[in-house]
Amino acid sequence: MVNGVERPLDLLNQSKGKEVMVQLKSGKEFSGTLLAFDIHINVVLDNAKEMEEGEVKKSIGLTFLRGDTIIFISPSGGK
Amino acid sequence: MVNGVERPLDLLNQSKGKEVMVQLKSGKEFSGTLLAFDIHINVVLDNAKEMEEGEVKKSIGLTFLRGDTIIFISPSGGK
Amino acid sequence: MVNGVERPLDLLNQSKGKEVMVQLKSGKEFSGTLLAFDIHINVVLDNAKEMEEGEVKKSIGLTFLRGDTIIFISPSGGK
Amino acid sequence: MVNGVERPLDLLNQSKGKEVMVQLKSGKEFSGTLLAFDIHINVVLDNAKEMEEGEVKKSIGLTFLRGDTIIFISPSGGK
Amino acid sequence: MVNGVERPLDLLNQSKGKEVMVQLKSGKEFSGTLLAFDIHINVVLDNAKEMEEGEVKKSIGLTFLRGDTIIFISPSGGK
Amino acid sequence: MVNGVERPLDLLNQSKGKEVMVQLKSGKEFSGTLLAFDIHINVVLDNAKEMEEGEVKKSIGLTFLRGDTIIFISPSGGK
Amino acid sequence: MVNGVERPLDLLNQSKGKEVMVQLKSGKEFSGTLLAFDIHINVVLDNAKEMEEGEVKKSIGLTFLRGDTIIFISPSGGK
Repeated sequence: MVNGVERPLDLLNQSKGKEVMVQLKSGKEFSGTLLAFDIHINVVLDNAKEMEEGEVKKSIGLTFLRGDTIIFISPSGGK
Repeated sequence: MVNGVERPLDLLNQSKGKEVMVQLKSGKEFSGTLLAFDIHINVVLDNAKEMEEGEVKKSIGLTFLRGDTIIFISPSGGK
Repeated sequence: MVNGVERPLDLLNQSKGKEVMVQLKSGKEFSGTLLAFDIHINVVLDNAKEMEEGEVKKSIGLTFLRGDTIIFISPSGGK
Repeated sequence: MVNGVERPLDLLNQSKGKEVMVQLKSGKEFSGTLLAFDIHINVVLDNAKEMEEGEVKKSIGLTFLRGDTIIFISPSGGK
Repeated sequence: MVNGVERPLDLLNQSKGKEVMVQLKSGKEFSGTLLAFDIHINVVLDNAKEMEEGEVKKSIGLTFLRGDTIIFISPSGGK
Repeated sequence: MVNGVERPLDLLNQSKGKEVMVQLKSGKEFSGTLLAFDIHINVVLDNAKEMEEGEVKKSIGLTFLRGDTIIFISPSGGK
Repeated sequence: MVNGVERPLDLLNQSKGKEVMVQLKSGKEFSGTLLAFDIHINVVLDNAKEMEEGEVKKSIGLTFLRGDTIIFISPSGGK
């Protein structure tokens, strides 16, 4: 079920192309498809949406998120 | 549509010369044409405009933005 | 009882596969099974749950937590 | 018009000897002549003036500004 | 009395196995037995207790504390 | 008038032995004679005085100031 | 009087074994005898006392202070 997660970045690698939930230090949450990440945890999300209480607050579309603003990235989408 | 984004900086590279929306940690948002970026995510925007609720609040013109102040950069302009 | 903890990361290594409590700088607390960590203290938790006053507030599931958001990680689960 | 800005620091290099507007993370704004900068975005301004709502609030004169306090540097002076 | 403290980490080394008081940037204080530390000042405490006004507020047990959250570590326990 | 400032640290070098005004991120301002600095912008001031509205609030004397707390250093003393 | 301070750390070196006043980013002030320091400005104070308005608020004793929490270190003790 959670095979192959030897290092934290392995989870991000397995999550490429999948829907993820990203929570930021500012308290904001974004959902979107994880397209890319790097060792700084900079990520690119496609179809990014700012979420609030499980509802879409704003559509952002394709976006680059700077790694040092991120608290967590969850491929299970907060479920 | 989102071809060639292997690493996060690939998206910034593809966005050169295009209109982007930049959100800062301070909460401010800038739109402008992305002219240049580096690995620190320092960017140069041309015709930068500070935005508020989708309206132009202030025109800044050509500007250098320090990377560590940035939350996200979206080539889709928040749409 | 606490054998083999020569360096701080030894404790994280011994805690792999076990339930841990993670407290963040934001004040939030997460419990979950520690699957992986790296030298930046980035961690992956399985079955992560946001906790409040010892109660489950929200289930997050499998998640990547960025190391620089963490205050402490306790394998004894706050007990 | 914006020739030769391949990298963000190129804009700072082209702005040497010109009037720039510098906005700080603290919210303060300084205008002055850009004399020097380095890769940390530390800058030296001559005839620096703290600005508020487009008015000179305080004259600082020759000054060294630490790079990690800066949000943006605009050679177009906010116009 | 304070022999052998040539460098700051020497004090932490001498404090291994002893009760220490740790104050965090968040204002919280933890007491516990110092088991391990590294150059980032990440530490492992055994029998960690969150303290408030000299009283035990909460028992945490064995815990890993991230170094960048720490203000001071005192082997004299605040006495 | 401002000869020889090729790099930001050149200004600090020229200011050695002179009165400088230092503004901190905390909002505090110190005046004093600049004795030394390093690449982290750590500085030593002699006869340091905490200033408030142009008045001496407190005399600190000889002091080491950590670089990452500094916004600006002005040899013109805010005049 | 202030001989031999070529670099900022020279002042800390000259202050070893002497009483110093340390002000933290949190606003707190500690006085104590400087026993050791390193390039991160981590310091060890002996007989450390938390000070408030020139009065001893709390005795801490021997303590390790993490460098990134420090604003200034003054061997003249704020006098």
